Amino acid sequence: MSGDLHITGIRPMGKAATSVTVRGGRIAAYGEDAPPGMETIDGGDAILIPGLVEAHTHLDKTLLGMGWYRNEVGPRLIDKIENERAEKKRLGIDPARQSARQAVLSVAQGSTAIRSHVDVDTEVGLSGIEGVLRTCEAYRDIVDIEIVAFPQSGMLIRPGTAELMEEALRLGAHVVGGLDPSAIDRDPKGHLDVIFGLAERFGVPVDIHLHEPAELGAFSMELIVERTRALGMQGEVTISHAFCLGMADRDYVASLIDALAEARVHILTTAPASRPVPPVKRLVEAGVVVAAGSDGVRDTWGPYGNADMLERAMLVGLRNNFRRDDEVEMALDVCTYGGARLMGLDGYGIAAGDRADFVLVEGETLAEAVVSRAPRRMVVKNGRVVARSGRALVEAP
Amino acid sequence: MSGDLHITGIRPMGKAATSVTVRGGRIAAYGEDAPPGMETIDGGDAILIPGLVEAHTHLDKTLLGMGWYRNEVGPRLIDKIENERAEKKRLGIDPARQSARQAVLSVAQGSTAIRSHVDVDTEVGLSGIEGVLRTCEAYRDIVDIEIVAFPQSGMLIRPGTAELMEEALRLGAHVVGGLDPSAIDRDPKGHLDVIFGLAERFGVPVDIHLHEPAELGAFSMELIVERTRALGMQGEVTISHAFCLGMADRDYVASLIDALAEARVHILTTAPASRPVPPVKRLVEAGVVVAAGSDGVRDTWGPYGNADMLERAMLVGLRNNFRRDDEVEMALDVCTYGGARLMGLDGYGIAAGDRADFVLVEGETLAEAVVSRAPRRMVVKNGRVVARSGRALVEAP
Repeated sequence: MSGDLHITGIRPMGKAATSVTVRGGRIAAYGEDAPPGMETIDGGDAILIPGLVEAHTHLDKTLLGMGWYRNEVGPRLIDKIENERAEKKRLGIDPARQSARQAVLSVAQGSTAIRSHVDVDTEVGLSGIEGVLRTCEAYRDIVDIEIVAFPQSGMLIRPGTAELMEEALRLGAHVVGGLDPSAIDRDPKGHLDVIFGLAERFGVPVDIHLHEPAELGAFSMELIVERTRALGMQGEVTISHAFCLGMADRDYVASLIDALAEARVHILTTAPASRPVPPVKRLVEAGVVVAAGSDGVRDTWGPYGNADMLERAMLVGLRNNFRRDDEVEMALDVCTYGGARLMGLDGYGIAAGDRADFVLVEGETLAEAVVSRAPRRMVVKNGRVVARSGRALVEAP
Repeated sequence: MSGDLHITGIRPMGKAATSVTVRGGRIAAYGEDAPPGMETIDGGDAILIPGLVEAHTHLDKTLLGMGWYRNEVGPRLIDKIENERAEKKRLGIDPARQSARQAVLSVAQGSTAIRSHVDVDTEVGLSGIEGVLRTCEAYRDIVDIEIVAFPQSGMLIRPGTAELMEEALRLGAHVVGGLDPSAIDRDPKGHLDVIFGLAERFGVPVDIHLHEPAELGAFSMELIVERTRALGMQGEVTISHAFCLGMADRDYVASLIDALAEARVHILTTAPASRPVPPVKRLVEAGVVVAAGSDGVRDTWGPYGNADMLERAMLVGLRNNFRRDDEVEMALDVCTYGGARLMGLDGYGIAAGDRADFVLVEGETLAEAVVSRAPRRMVVKNGRVVARSGRALVEAP
């Protein structure tokens, strides 16, 4: 297929019905008649939105398709981390196969780009990175996958990990990841110096998991902002989870939000219902890029998740008490344009000239599409149909 | 149809596959051969669970099937209450029609019993109660509906409302409802005296919406417990929402939980992601009956909700950070047995002799059924199939 398409009966962002013409994998025009000889599809009056962006997940560790995993894990963070390292061996979680399964599910749900953190530690070494790199390559025609080298088990506390992170970047990981500089790695300055040092040497962005609560997380956030400024990495740094922004001290939060906006540090939220969360509306209104992700999808950490970023938009809405249509639309924006800005996706959008990465979703309005979460009518990647009626046209392994 | 059925290939609560025989609308036996002449159905290896219980919703105010409602409502509680009263007239929200639509959707999702709060105020008078009573009667063969007379706009602050509440109970409302005795009605003693007075005179249970936060809600909770004890109404009183149980003061919460358990006052949660919530596990472990509900489904208050109590179990799990299988099973128990105990449903369960109200759900385990939320394979009410493959066999108006 050539990446040429003509689709009638689509409503861009829920507006009046028109047609869209795609040429060479890019959106060429709206409202044209069907060009002679071009494949024409009926859009069924669905809403056209840009491809959903899964901006934070863990493709290497999903258990999709492996039979039900009975979770009997203890309550502490360290229980989950240690359980996972043990289960990886016992269950034979193959990163290439598993990442392909989740990637195909993502495509079926309308995601056209994925940022995946991938574990790097002294037990699995680089096998996760290598496996997800294979999926990234094998499925490059249907989804863009960006890989974050992620020290899930800690970095400084597990000697040898920093060297493996460096090797991961050499192999082709696209982003350097970090994790709770104080709470896990016990040395915030040391942790961040290594992470930002790698980013500088390899010229890659940074994405740091920050679960640290309240004032402890806020201190780490300040250190991250300082380094972002000092290295001129504005726009290249993401803080994932950022639970500290959900703390009670509103004035402190306001000062942090100002600092994030000024240093153009992005915030990634999964909108968990059981944890404090970054206030999406306040962040967006302050000009901070906010994106969202599924986090783990059915893994040893927990049974939830279906890689549906339209459902994630709903969860962002529920968590932030978004009830008005303009607020629900903001949640959807987080799961589309927000993710695209965080990942720096080139040519993202639905204007003429943009890459033809889009989804046809069912609903009278954008808000209805979000709360209904009906199976996606169609998903188009680089001008080619990659999923229909909630099913990917490519088989998962 | 007679309420006789034989279904092969079902797994009761996810256990080993067997068959179930239904006679006269009740579960007769497991593991029997197909009785001659009886309708036999293939259960497809689905899990059999008792009917889901929607223990808190507002059937009279859903906008299902009425075209998308663009929500531009202000942020305060009073904005939502006043907006709704105005929109009821403007939009022509017909309680009989709308409650029927949501009831049929509930049946399709596997709920076999519903407790619905129904507005009573000096503007709509008893039209809501009359409308939902009609639905209750018209759909009695496919779902049990219990009606709570609910003073949504306040009772003492709107003179005439208490008299309408009394009239609602005379018309056939099954439960007397209350609402924020301090925050809305400005007179906690006065409010509760009227509510419990009506309960005593009509011999009906009580179900009070309590959104009041922290110490204020805790004070109301204490007053409710005191009256429950004084009137010997143990087991007949429910506190819905009970956000105060989500407050930070764990010792105070512990004393409240003890009092609830001792007075057998039930707790209803919708597990909202954006509010403090009752701690489900602590309550269940203390012996308090905990049930769950959808709350409003696509109404002027907000766009969310699909009446799916399997999805609600997932949201209860997410809100309470339930990750282990036994915890997810607890969330499902809340949405089945918990609701049945709260409503006092007679013959509820899946043992031989119980009413044949059950659902066949897809999944390898109970936890997978909850997190996957696949369309229900089959819903049986009083021994008759009322929904298949996610669709009710009765049409909604």
